[in-house]
Amino acid sequence: MQQGAGRRVSVQEVATRDGFQIEPGFVPTAAKIALIDKLSTTGLGRIEVTSFSSPRAIPALADAAAVMDGIRRARGTLYAVLVPNIRGCERALAHRPDELNFVMSASETHSQANLRMSRADSLAQLSGIIASAGGATPINVSISTAFGCPFEGEVKPGVIFALVGELVALGVGRVSLCDTTGVANPAQVNRLFRQARRNWPGLRFTAHFHNTRGMALANVLAALQAGIVDFDASLGGLGGCPFAPGATGNACTEDLVHMLQTMGYATGIDLAALLDAARDLPSLVGHAVPGQLISAGPSTRRYPAPSQP
Amino acid sequence: MQQGAGRRVSVQEVATRDGFQIEPGFVPTAAKIALIDKLSTTGLGRIEVTSFSSPRAIPALADAAAVMDGIRRARGTLYAVLVPNIRGCERALAHRPDELNFVMSASETHSQANLRMSRADSLAQLSGIIASAGGATPINVSISTAFGCPFEGEVKPGVIFALVGELVALGVGRVSLCDTTGVANPAQVNRLFRQARRNWPGLRFTAHFHNTRGMALANVLAALQAGIVDFDASLGGLGGCPFAPGATGNACTEDLVHMLQTMGYATGIDLAALLDAARDLPSLVGHAVPGQLISAGPSTRRYPAPSQP
Repeated sequence: MQQGAGRRVSVQEVATRDGFQIEPGFVPTAAKIALIDKLSTTGLGRIEVTSFSSPRAIPALADAAAVMDGIRRARGTLYAVLVPNIRGCERALAHRPDELNFVMSASETHSQANLRMSRADSLAQLSGIIASAGGATPINVSISTAFGCPFEGEVKPGVIFALVGELVALGVGRVSLCDTTGVANPAQVNRLFRQARRNWPGLRFTAHFHNTRGMALANVLAALQAGIVDFDASLGGLGGCPFAPGATGNACTEDLVHMLQTMGYATGIDLAALLDAARDLPSLVGHAVPGQLISAGPSTRRYPAPSQP
Repeated sequence: MQQGAGRRVSVQEVATRDGFQIEPGFVPTAAKIALIDKLSTTGLGRIEVTSFSSPRAIPALADAAAVMDGIRRARGTLYAVLVPNIRGCERALAHRPDELNFVMSASETHSQANLRMSRADSLAQLSGIIASAGGATPINVSISTAFGCPFEGEVKPGVIFALVGELVALGVGRVSLCDTTGVANPAQVNRLFRQARRNWPGLRFTAHFHNTRGMALANVLAALQAGIVDFDASLGGLGGCPFAPGATGNACTEDLVHMLQTMGYATGIDLAALLDAARDLPSLVGHAVPGQLISAGPSTRRYPAPSQP
């Protein structure tokens, strides 16, 4: 078993994209910018800032351009944006993202529900994006429903590997396997990532989990044991997919970073600063958030011994 | 990595003891009995029914005798009760438990706070219990704060192993290592249980986790990988320790059983029946419970594909 021992693990913060996209209340643009600026001081290596989706499809992120223009970029932090199609890519590129995260679905039904196009159309969109952004801006591809689909059920590993093969043929160098509705279990996670890394040793795989059934951190552990060192997570455990019924919060960033650090992994992240940012969330989104560490504090927390009666 | 593959894992339900003991409202005796009777139909191999603690110390379980006398015992299910001292043991034995769970603390400060006696006094109490119950009723010893103490901080593995050595010398055959305030991390869990099993191959170790910092199921995975096949869990994720600040819910039984089953482990438990019992909890305790599966449903849950616009 991997015991951490100083091994480097990278966490990408996705709260302002995966989290805010399903919040019923619109988080004001200035508040989004302030949160991202605060996150930029925590040592996070990557922040997925927003999504250049259709403002009609995802009104919560209709201010993507203003947010990208408003944030102060920290040296050493990569600022990514999600793009679902060529149109979104063109809008995004005007705001100088460090990376484009193109999202597509492993299952046809979720592809139609989430993106309103077939998987084949998605791949055609991706080709166009690579043609227009290719050389200048790196592209990560996130495969939704990689561990199961809320409409179709099981998604076979062969489907994922065929898709990854097509991405590699297009020149993609980074791929995220996403458990969109929190159906993955640790045995499945370990098998899929082990096989993926065996098939494509040069590809950088990211694991993206949701805590819908309480398994997010167990799945992280299983992915670590398969050699994965890149994880998506969402501050406070916010998140979900607007077009995937039953989707709830992502793996919680501060809970994940705390687990990694207590295990001895090097994250480069200031946990206290991260917790400080997380504590702003409930007032920002108007409800309690699922993250545990916000209330529990880190495991090193001490209490005074009770006085004896 | 262990992949399940039909391997047998046993789960002990502790909600009516570890869960109800910290509920601010007293759960009526009849409701406790009804819940335990329902749990007895789910295939659970072990239920920790109640605690014969001082009713002044834990008023929520002052009805321990009536509960033990009221339940209908299912064939194949073991009904255990917690006892903190000889006095509790004597009260308990009159109600024919299948097992006594003697609880003591790894840390001196928690021992004083939780049990109002030193660890040495605890061991003396245990000797008395073994003398009076020994041959007839099996004894499990639960070691609280085995992964860290909310007052003292780190608890060294050497402290645990010295204690286990003393228990073995007294003839104890089952030992639970309890993460009372949810401070354990998977690397620590794996190391401690591996070493414990190496030191005492004949001893049966149970892992008892709390989800205070979101790591309960990750810790279960780490313990499984160390060869542990006995786990405590609490329906709905209820739980905590009245005398350990910061303690929150146990590993959630239905979330744990779901994870185990999706990984291919054999639990002997009917998940649908368990979920049915869990859904009674919020009205029973008067608040929402932390378990995830109650609202999410199992990972096999399907939704109708959305109609296209």
